[in-house]
Amino acid sequence: MRFKAQVRVTLKESILDPQGSAVKRALHAMSHDNVLDVRIGKHIELVLTADGPESARRQVQEIADRLLANPVIESFSFDLAEAGGETG
Amino acid sequence: MRFKAQVRVTLKESILDPQGSAVKRALHAMSHDNVLDVRIGKHIELVLTADGPESARRQVQEIADRLLANPVIESFSFDLAEAGGETG
Repeated sequence: MRFKAQVRVTLKESILDPQGSAVKRALHAMSHDNVLDVRIGKHIELVLTADGPESARRQVQEIADRLLANPVIESFSFDLAEAGGETG
Repeated sequence: MRFKAQVRVTLKESILDPQGSAVKRALHAMSHDNVLDVRIGKHIELVLTADGPESARRQVQEIADRLLANPVIESFSFDLAEAGGETG
């Protein structure tokens, strides 16, 4: 079975986000003054084959934990769905 | 009312994603050979105040279109939800 995982990697609340601050300043300069906060993270789409949703979920968890997110400063969450296309 | 928008900015299908290819190679080297595809994009959280969901939605659409995504190579989608906290 083929699965698609959408992983969101975001900076922890306590970590400063200079890129987000820069976007917020740019928005205020564009007269979007009502934007109170901007935080920028990564969005990663993984397509993988697995025997079932449980094993896919376990693998995505491990991949996100080991490779995609830096656990010192980032946290992650993900959604998993069965994807179309041929089984590989 | 206070709203939180989660914006996903992803490269269009036709655009090469060297960062995603590098992550895929790293995963294969870590014996996650069943990962078929990796695409990397941005995840942006915006907190904003607005009169109602319709005006918040319109504004997030405009912000994503003008500032967050490059329409030549990227597409975006977003979810909007009412956020807790005081009205400001």
